[in-house]
Amino acid sequence: MRAISQAQPNIALVKYWGKRDVENNLPATGSLSVTLDALWTRMSVEFDDQPGPDTLLVNGAEQPTMLPRVRRCLDDIAGAERPAARIESECNFPIAAGLASSASAFAALATAASKANGRRSDRLSLARAAGRASGSAARSLYPGFVELEVGPDNINLSTLATPEQWPLTVTVAVTEAGSKPVSSSAAMIISRQTSPFYEAWVERQPEDLSAAREAVAARDFAALAAVAEHNCLKMHSVMWSSRPSVVYWNSATLAALESVRRMQDRGDAVFFTIDAGPQVKVVSLPEMATEVADQLRKTAGVIDVLQSGLGDGARIL
Amino acid sequence: MRAISQAQPNIALVKYWGKRDVENNLPATGSLSVTLDALWTRMSVEFDDQPGPDTLLVNGAEQPTMLPRVRRCLDDIAGAERPAARIESECNFPIAAGLASSASAFAALATAASKANGRRSDRLSLARAAGRASGSAARSLYPGFVELEVGPDNINLSTLATPEQWPLTVTVAVTEAGSKPVSSSAAMIISRQTSPFYEAWVERQPEDLSAAREAVAARDFAALAAVAEHNCLKMHSVMWSSRPSVVYWNSATLAALESVRRMQDRGDAVFFTIDAGPQVKVVSLPEMATEVADQLRKTAGVIDVLQSGLGDGARIL
Repeated sequence: MRAISQAQPNIALVKYWGKRDVENNLPATGSLSVTLDALWTRMSVEFDDQPGPDTLLVNGAEQPTMLPRVRRCLDDIAGAERPAARIESECNFPIAAGLASSASAFAALATAASKANGRRSDRLSLARAAGRASGSAARSLYPGFVELEVGPDNINLSTLATPEQWPLTVTVAVTEAGSKPVSSSAAMIISRQTSPFYEAWVERQPEDLSAAREAVAARDFAALAAVAEHNCLKMHSVMWSSRPSVVYWNSATLAALESVRRMQDRGDAVFFTIDAGPQVKVVSLPEMATEVADQLRKTAGVIDVLQSGLGDGARIL
Repeated sequence: MRAISQAQPNIALVKYWGKRDVENNLPATGSLSVTLDALWTRMSVEFDDQPGPDTLLVNGAEQPTMLPRVRRCLDDIAGAERPAARIESECNFPIAAGLASSASAFAALATAASKANGRRSDRLSLARAAGRASGSAARSLYPGFVELEVGPDNINLSTLATPEQWPLTVTVAVTEAGSKPVSSSAAMIISRQTSPFYEAWVERQPEDLSAAREAVAARDFAALAAVAEHNCLKMHSVMWSSRPSVVYWNSATLAALESVRRMQDRGDAVFFTIDAGPQVKVVSLPEMATEVADQLRKTAGVIDVLQSGLGDGARIL
C-alpha cells in the first residue's frame, strides 16, 4: 500500500525549547506557531508485503543517518511487526538549517504512513506520533495559528485562527545554506542541564503563551510582535548561557535583525523570529511582503529570501 | 591648585551588570577585570579660589551633558562647599562606545580632584568615590587583575595578579565608532526590572567569580577563557531578555566572534569578551597578539583594531 502526503514547516512564535521527558520527546512547555504554505515536504510511504530493511530517499539520495529516527516513527504508527517501508521524500527548501524541515518531514511521514498502513487515525493521534519523532512536527498537522499544550502525559493541539482568519506573511532570510553545527535535540539537552536561565525560561512560558493567544484572538499585530520577539531572544539567551554555549547566529543574522529594526523604526508592521539556526524569519502583514523581501535581499550576507503565506496542516495528496 | 592624573579603562572578565542600590551606585554583584595600559584618559582638575560654575572640556570641547555627573563626583571628593573646578579631559580612544571610557574618566577624575583639593586619600577611598560615579570606574584605580567585592554597605577591591605576574594582551575590534543607543546605567535598570533571568544572573555570579579567581591564581588561560566567555554571553542574555530588549551587538560583533572561534578551533590561546556595546575584546597570550590583530583587521565590518597590554591603576602624573 502506498500513500503520498504533504506537510509544511511551521515557525514558532512562542518557542519550544527543552524536553520534560526525553524518552517520549515530551516538551517542557507549550508553544505557539504558524504553519506555512509555500515551503513543503512531500512524502511517499509504501509498505511491502513482508518485513525487511526500510529504505529512505530524500530528494533522490539515500539518507542512512535519518533512517533510525524514521524507523522508530514508522514502528510507532504501524507497529514493530510492520512490513518494510520504502520512503521517498522531496523538500523544496534547505534541510537541517533551522527552517523546520524535520517538522514538515515527520508530519508528512506520520500522515502518509498511517494511510499506507490502512489505519484511520485522527489528526491528534498523528500529531502526537509526529511529535514523538520531532517535538515541533506535531504543530505541522494543524493549519494556521497553532497552540501546542503539554498535559501530564501527552500533548494537545488546536488551531487558534485559520490562515483565512488572519493572513500573515512569513519571509525567511536565509543566511547559511549548510547544516547547523549542533542539532536542536542535542542543544536542548545541553540547555536543560547547564543553562542557569533554563528554569526561569520554563516558568515564564505560560505568560508568553497567554499574551500570544490573546494577541491572535484580537488580531493585534503589535502585541504579537512584542511577545514573539521577546520569546525568541529569551530562547537564544538560554542557548547562549549554556555550557558549552550554543550560538546559532552568524553576522548576517544580526544584519537581518538590524534591517527589521530599521523597518520598525519607520512604522512598518513587521517582526522577527529566529529558530535553532542562523535564519531570520520576518512576519508581516501581507501588504508589507514585497518591501520586506526587498529589504532582506539588500541585507549583507543574506543569500536567499523565501516567502510564504500561512497554510493548512499535513494531508494526503 | 591643579593636579593632572591618568587612568586606563578596564575590561571585566566577570561582568558588572545591575545595581543593588541605585542611589549609591552599589553593584548587585562582585566583578573581576583587567586594567589596560595603552588606552588612557588624562585629566587636569584645577580648583579656583571661590565657588562658581564648574567647566568641563573633553578632548577640547565642552561637554555639558556629562557635567552633572562630574559635579556630583567632585562634591563627593571635595565637599559640596568646594570652589569651582576647571576640568580638562583627554582620551585616546572612542568615548561612550562600550570601551569603558567612563571607567577611566571617573578613576582619573577622583584621583586628580583629591590631589587638587589637597587631600591625602588612600586608593580604596578614591576607588569608592569613582565607583559611586561609575560602577566599573572603581576597578581602574588598581593595576592588573582586579577583583571588586560587594560588602553590605560598600565595595572592596584588590589586585589578584599584577601585569608583570601574568602579562596578557587585549585586542579590541571596534565595530562602531558612535555612541551606544542606551547607556549602561539605563539598561541595567531595565534588566533588573524586566529580565526573567536577572535573579539567576545575580545568584550565579559568585560561582563565576570563584572560577575566575582560581584561574588567575593558577595562570590557567583555558579556565579563564571558559568562565569569561560564559559570563559574557550570560550578561548579554540578561540584556536581550529584558523588555524592551537591549541588543548592543551588530553584524560585525558576530563576525569578530566567529573569527575568535576560528582561531580557537586551530588551538590558539584566545577568548572574547563583549561589554555593553558592540565592540569585541579579544584576550590572548602576548605571543598571539599580532595574529589576533591581523585576524580582526581582516574581519568584515571591523573598522579599527586597538591593542593593549595590562597596566597600572590610576595615578597622578
